Amino acid sequence: MTNNLIRKAIVIAALTLSGCGAVINTADDSNTVKADTPLRATGDMGVVIERATGQVLIVNHTNQQALAQISGLGDLSHASIVYSRDQRYAYVFGRDGGLTKIDILKDKIAKRIMQSGNSIGGAISQDGKLVAVSNYTPGGVKVFDAETLELVADIKASELLCKPKNKDGSTKRSKVVGLVDAPNHRFVFSLFDSDEIWIADFSKPKYQLTKFTDIGRAPYDALISPDGRYYIAGLFGEDGMALLDLWNVDQGVKRILKDYGKGSKKLPVYKMPHLEGWAMAGDFAYVPAVGLHKVLIINTKTWQQVGAIDVHGQPVFVMVQPDNRQVWVNFAFPRNDTVQIIDTMSQSLIQTLKPGKGVLHMEFTPRGEHVWMSVRDDGKIQIYDTQTKELLNEIDAASPSGIFFTNRAHQIGL
Amino acid sequence: MTNNLIRKAIVIAALTLSGCGAVINTADDSNTVKADTPLRATGDMGVVIERATGQVLIVNHTNQQALAQISGLGDLSHASIVYSRDQRYAYVFGRDGGLTKIDILKDKIAKRIMQSGNSIGGAISQDGKLVAVSNYTPGGVKVFDAETLELVADIKASELLCKPKNKDGSTKRSKVVGLVDAPNHRFVFSLFDSDEIWIADFSKPKYQLTKFTDIGRAPYDALISPDGRYYIAGLFGEDGMALLDLWNVDQGVKRILKDYGKGSKKLPVYKMPHLEGWAMAGDFAYVPAVGLHKVLIINTKTWQQVGAIDVHGQPVFVMVQPDNRQVWVNFAFPRNDTVQIIDTMSQSLIQTLKPGKGVLHMEFTPRGEHVWMSVRDDGKIQIYDTQTKELLNEIDAASPSGIFFTNRAHQIGL
Repeated sequence: MTNNLIRKAIVIAALTLSGCGAVINTADDSNTVKADTPLRATGDMGVVIERATGQVLIVNHTNQQALAQISGLGDLSHASIVYSRDQRYAYVFGRDGGLTKIDILKDKIAKRIMQSGNSIGGAISQDGKLVAVSNYTPGGVKVFDAETLELVADIKASELLCKPKNKDGSTKRSKVVGLVDAPNHRFVFSLFDSDEIWIADFSKPKYQLTKFTDIGRAPYDALISPDGRYYIAGLFGEDGMALLDLWNVDQGVKRILKDYGKGSKKLPVYKMPHLEGWAMAGDFAYVPAVGLHKVLIINTKTWQQVGAIDVHGQPVFVMVQPDNRQVWVNFAFPRNDTVQIIDTMSQSLIQTLKPGKGVLHMEFTPRGEHVWMSVRDDGKIQIYDTQTKELLNEIDAASPSGIFFTNRAHQIGL
Repeated sequence: MTNNLIRKAIVIAALTLSGCGAVINTADDSNTVKADTPLRATGDMGVVIERATGQVLIVNHTNQQALAQISGLGDLSHASIVYSRDQRYAYVFGRDGGLTKIDILKDKIAKRIMQSGNSIGGAISQDGKLVAVSNYTPGGVKVFDAETLELVADIKASELLCKPKNKDGSTKRSKVVGLVDAPNHRFVFSLFDSDEIWIADFSKPKYQLTKFTDIGRAPYDALISPDGRYYIAGLFGEDGMALLDLWNVDQGVKRILKDYGKGSKKLPVYKMPHLEGWAMAGDFAYVPAVGLHKVLIINTKTWQQVGAIDVHGQPVFVMVQPDNRQVWVNFAFPRNDTVQIIDTMSQSLIQTLKPGKGVLHMEFTPRGEHVWMSVRDDGKIQIYDTQTKELLNEIDAASPSGIFFTNRAHQIGL
């Protein structure tokens, strides 16, 4: 749903990839390489979404270079990526229901299917065997074999009996949002129209669903804590959030942060913040306020707000460095030319950067020495030193948005 | 120092590696592969130390197979490994001062040097450019260029003016232990004979040393918290531990856990526990007691002991699953045929496994669905499902000890 609120400023940036390899789309399906292929370990690689042109860039974050560009991925607005457990394959979830498996050793599309009419994100199971996609149309979650992309399970969302039927006469089903993987081969997701959170447990051959109803009105996005324990859904239809403790599912879903949301807003909401951006460091979560120029500080023991930091605009992503020492914040249009940095020890703002127009996403290198930023309207990825804040390098990219490094393969919920 | 206390039971296990590739030691230094080389992504790989034979196994944890065996690594008792940031190279730190760089894409030794007479472990800098080794003889830390293994810095430890001189007439220097990497391109280590902790900061072209003296008697090992904030050294010469908060170095080193150590021991200490094994989950650290059949529970806010769990023997490694839900414990000789599992929510023992004789080390797959164990005297690596505790598979290995998966490349302090 967040995407509907974005003020789109589509810029068809000129494609000027210096030193970038050509698109490889051969029919070579062998698992061996040709002579003189450069050897490539996958620990320092990544994929960047080029949203306006339906392309992605394969990048290397040691050499800070684009290695290749892949075309033909469809509508990549709001696209996201997960990685196979060996880091060889990037699964790209497109807005148009496309699911594309990219081979980042061969720089080509390994498989591509259209799995629905309209989708909003995906996840990969703990063991890497299953890839799940959350869909708006038809509402539900489809689960695929990660190797073959064959359908393994089609989990249909709740029927909306009071809504007008679909054109084909079938009953509408709830949109599904906030899909994440959780430990023990589970997927967790939220049903926007039916106010539910479901757990799909794939640890046994036949999967099992656990459903929580009346969790709060219109969950629009969700996150899972880095240890896979807490699943938290944001609510579009009311203030507050819904918390499910996956170590204590018998306790059901609780309502937390009852003032969180649009109720107290002073400004028009340009973009609902991304919940995946919640930065959890020590006992605190740093959370984008909705419609306010503030980052909220939440105590994760009590789930109460304990503070707020005034920032430059409406925050979108609030991301913590791997060492938990600094939190980086980007902002919604029209203030999306700025990034601010919060020190987590003093819980105060320490620096403001002006990378350029349309800072859409940030990604830290695995141990946090650098941060990469997509600067969409300038057609650039910028790379900063997180300690000195020095701009180290720029890489040309066509309307870059999400940046996804391969170390995500090893993290719960990413 | 811990090694001196090990009751050694060297077993020359027969080498029966089914399906294991041959040792490759060609002079091919090109960075391209030969035709028909199998493609290999590096996210699901690892290296296992075969301590008795000076060899290592390169393994894959998706297929649960040994891919290759590399020989000629010298004395691998107490050996450890760090990875290059792209995960292509494993740096093996041998007991005899050998530093070997293994290319896990080509299954061969890329470079090997003898950098001292007696060493005890190493670390790789946050940006992957420097590899550091802590040495007993001569006492100090040597820092090498990660690519070439050329010496970058030779940090000599404090002179021991009251001790007899070396045979060559030079003054003895303190042994160095507990070497770890820390954020912002630092290495932190402890000086056993001179009761010091030093920080070596390599963020600028000329490195800077910060020295803390009188930190406690005879630090013998150390660990760093997963976020890189707390450096904690165990003390051999007195009870208690030394804590350095790297976010507040001006406050100096504090003494914590004043009862921790041998003072209260009821049993002979068969092996000083490995401090790297400290399991930190939520507000608690699960810590092996010295000389007691107990795992201690420490509150990491107050650094006070808040509980203890009776276990099968003297714990060696106390390791937490990536999801923080379970802690796995192995034990010192003569009780090293057993592994026990603690539930972190109830803080109680939930299961006892009997993998076989000489369980020396455990390593979780990156997202924690499996755990690999070295069962030295049975000549096997065993693989368990962490949820069901089912034994999934075994891999033959000659006296296996340390297991190191490539996701360590992305973690602070590993």
